[in-house]
Amino acid sequence: MSETHAHRRDALRSLLRERDLDALLVTDLLNIRYLTGFTGSNAALVVHAGDENRTVFCTDGRYLTQAEEQVPDLERVIDRASDVTLAQRLGEEVGVYRRVGFESQHVTVDNRDVLDDAAGKSELVRAPGLVEDLRLIKDETEIDALRMACAAADRALADLIEHGGLRPGRTELEVARDLEARMLDNGAAGPSFDTIVAAGANSAVPHHRPTDAVLTTGDFVKMDFGALVDGYHSDMTRTVVLGKAADWQRDVYELVRASQAAGRAAVKAGTEVSEVDTAARQVITDAGHGERFLHGLGHGVGLEIHEAPTLSQRGDGRIAERMAVTVEPGVYLAGQGGVRIEDTLVVRPGTPELLTLTTKELVEV
Amino acid sequence: MSETHAHRRDALRSLLRERDLDALLVTDLLNIRYLTGFTGSNAALVVHAGDENRTVFCTDGRYLTQAEEQVPDLERVIDRASDVTLAQRLGEEVGVYRRVGFESQHVTVDNRDVLDDAAGKSELVRAPGLVEDLRLIKDETEIDALRMACAAADRALADLIEHGGLRPGRTELEVARDLEARMLDNGAAGPSFDTIVAAGANSAVPHHRPTDAVLTTGDFVKMDFGALVDGYHSDMTRTVVLGKAADWQRDVYELVRASQAAGRAAVKAGTEVSEVDTAARQVITDAGHGERFLHGLGHGVGLEIHEAPTLSQRGDGRIAERMAVTVEPGVYLAGQGGVRIEDTLVVRPGTPELLTLTTKELVEV
Repeated sequence: MSETHAHRRDALRSLLRERDLDALLVTDLLNIRYLTGFTGSNAALVVHAGDENRTVFCTDGRYLTQAEEQVPDLERVIDRASDVTLAQRLGEEVGVYRRVGFESQHVTVDNRDVLDDAAGKSELVRAPGLVEDLRLIKDETEIDALRMACAAADRALADLIEHGGLRPGRTELEVARDLEARMLDNGAAGPSFDTIVAAGANSAVPHHRPTDAVLTTGDFVKMDFGALVDGYHSDMTRTVVLGKAADWQRDVYELVRASQAAGRAAVKAGTEVSEVDTAARQVITDAGHGERFLHGLGHGVGLEIHEAPTLSQRGDGRIAERMAVTVEPGVYLAGQGGVRIEDTLVVRPGTPELLTLTTKELVEV
Repeated sequence: MSETHAHRRDALRSLLRERDLDALLVTDLLNIRYLTGFTGSNAALVVHAGDENRTVFCTDGRYLTQAEEQVPDLERVIDRASDVTLAQRLGEEVGVYRRVGFESQHVTVDNRDVLDDAAGKSELVRAPGLVEDLRLIKDETEIDALRMACAAADRALADLIEHGGLRPGRTELEVARDLEARMLDNGAAGPSFDTIVAAGANSAVPHHRPTDAVLTTGDFVKMDFGALVDGYHSDMTRTVVLGKAADWQRDVYELVRASQAAGRAAVKAGTEVSEVDTAARQVITDAGHGERFLHGLGHGVGLEIHEAPTLSQRGDGRIAERMAVTVEPGVYLAGQGGVRIEDTLVVRPGTPELLTLTTKELVEV
C-alpha cells in the first residue's frame, strides 16, 4: 500500500506544480487517508511540490503506534494541534514554502486565521479540491475495496432473504437492523449510511427512515443500503414485493428497471453527466411519470458515500474511465408505493463494470 | 418539544442582542437540530434577534414531509442550497437584516464567499460558538435523552455479562459487536462511537481498536462504549478481569477507582475545570503512576460525543450546573495491561447526578 500512496502523492505534486504552489497543507482527514493510508481522527499533512522527502505528517499521541504502522514511510511529528504545528513548520522554512495551498473548501473561516498566523511569512493560498480531483478517478486498489464493499451488501441481502428475514409481520426497523448485522457478518466494518427500509406506501417516500411500520403481504419493500470496507462505501437499492406482485406494481417496476438499464448503458467515458441523467429520465418521462422521479440519477462513491461527479441535470463535466458512480432512478406514487433500483458501477472501456450484482428481476418474496 | 425549541431560540435571541446582531444564520446541523428538532442532513436556519415570527428554516425536497412533522411551527422554505437560499433572503430585506452573524467556526473559507455574495448588502459578521454556548448547559429534555442513552449502555453491558458474552476464547471484535447489538436491543439508535474492547496487554493502549485478539483467562478487558438515543450520546468505560484478579490488577484497579471517585467529587458548580482534572490526577501521581495517565480527565457530552467543556490541565472555564461531562482517569502499564473507569454525569447542586449506573467495584467475570 505504501507504494500506492506514494504514487498518489506524486500525482498531487503534478497538480501543485501546474498551480505554482510550493506545497499543499492537507487537513481533510479523508484526503489524508487517501494520500497516506492513515485512518485516525486527527492529522495534517504537507506535500511538497517537488520533493517527496519533504512530506511531513502530524498526528497526536493517541495515534503514535498507529501512525508508525500506517505511515511508516513518512516523517512523523506528534502534536495535538496537527494543522497548526505543520503551518508553523512552513513558516520556519519560508525559503522552501513561499506559496502554500490550503484546502479552502474544508478549512473554516476561524481556523484559516489561526493557520495564517502560524504560517508566518509563508503565504497560504486557496487550493480547493486538488485531492478530490485525484479521487474522482479510482485506482485499482480503490476499485478492489469498492468491489468488496458491494459484495458485502449483495451477500447481506441474499442472506436476509434466504433466512426469511423479509416477511409479513416484521417491522421496517427490524429488517434494517437485520440487514446491517448481515453486512457486518459479510466483512463490512459498518453500514455506509443509515439503512432505508420502506414498506407499502412508505416506499413512495424517497428517503424514508425505517419505522415500526409492519411489512404486509402485497407491499413493495424498498431497501437502500451500503457497506463500508477499508474506508470505501457501497450503495445499492433493491425493491421487492412481499407475495405476488399486482399488475400496477409490475408496471412501475419494469419501467424503473428499463430506466435504470438505459442509465447504465449511457455511463461511458466522454458522455456529459447530465446526458446520463437524461438517458434514464427520458424513459420515465415518456411513460408519463416524469414528475414522479424526484431526484438526480446518481453520484460518485468512494471514501465518501456522496462525492463527485453528480449525475443530474444540474451536473457538470463528463464521465471518465475508472469513475465509480451510482445509477438510481425511481418512480414514487404517493400514498401507494414506489420503486428505486440502484447499482454502484465503475466506468470501463465499453460497458461499465457492475459492482452490485444482486438481480434486478422483480423478486416476489 | 416545539416549546423546548422555541425556548432555546429565545435564549439565542438574548445572545444576539448582546452582540448587536440582527440575526444569526445557523448552518451547523447539530445546532439546527438543537434549535428546531430537525434531524435531516441538509438545512439552514435564520433566527432573528427580536422577532420569533421571522425565524425561517430551509431544507431540500427530500425532507419536505419530515420538515412538516419536525418543524411545524416555523416558516419552511424548500430549496437544495439551503444556506445560500436563506442568505439571499437576508439580502432581500436589508432593512431588517443589517448585521447578521454566521457560524465562522463551521463555515468554510470558500463557502463564506458564496454566502457573502448571496447576502448582498446584509453584512455577514463572525459569530462563532453562540449556539454551542447554550448547548453547554443542558435542559431537562436533553438530560432525559442522556439518561436514556446511558441506560441503554448500562443494560447492554449487564446483558453481555449475564449471557456469558465475556469469556475466554472470544475475540475483541466479537465482544465489541455483541455489545453494540445489545445497545440496539436496549433502545439505542446506534453506537455513539466505535466501541473499544481491549484485552490483556491491549488494555494498556488508551484508544485501542478491537482486533481478532482472543480473550484469555487473567486478562483485563477494557470496554469503552456508548449509545445514541434521540441524538444524544452516552460514554462509559468499564474494565473487568476474566477470572480471578491478580494482586497487581487489583492494585491498579483500586487506584483508578479512587482517582475516578476523587474526580467525580470535584465536579461541582464553580470549580475550575483544570482543578477537576487535578483532583483525579493527584491520586494517581501520588501513587507514582502520574506518567501512566496519558490523557485528560474528561469532556462534555451531548449532541456530540466530545464537546465543551474539556476537563484537563489545558481546559478553561468553570463547571456549571447542568453541564454533562465524563470523568475517565486511566492507568496504562505498557505490555501488561491498563484500567480506565468512566462515567457520564450531570452537574447538580451538591453531588453530581450519575447517569451511567453500572457498578465500579472490581468485577471478576
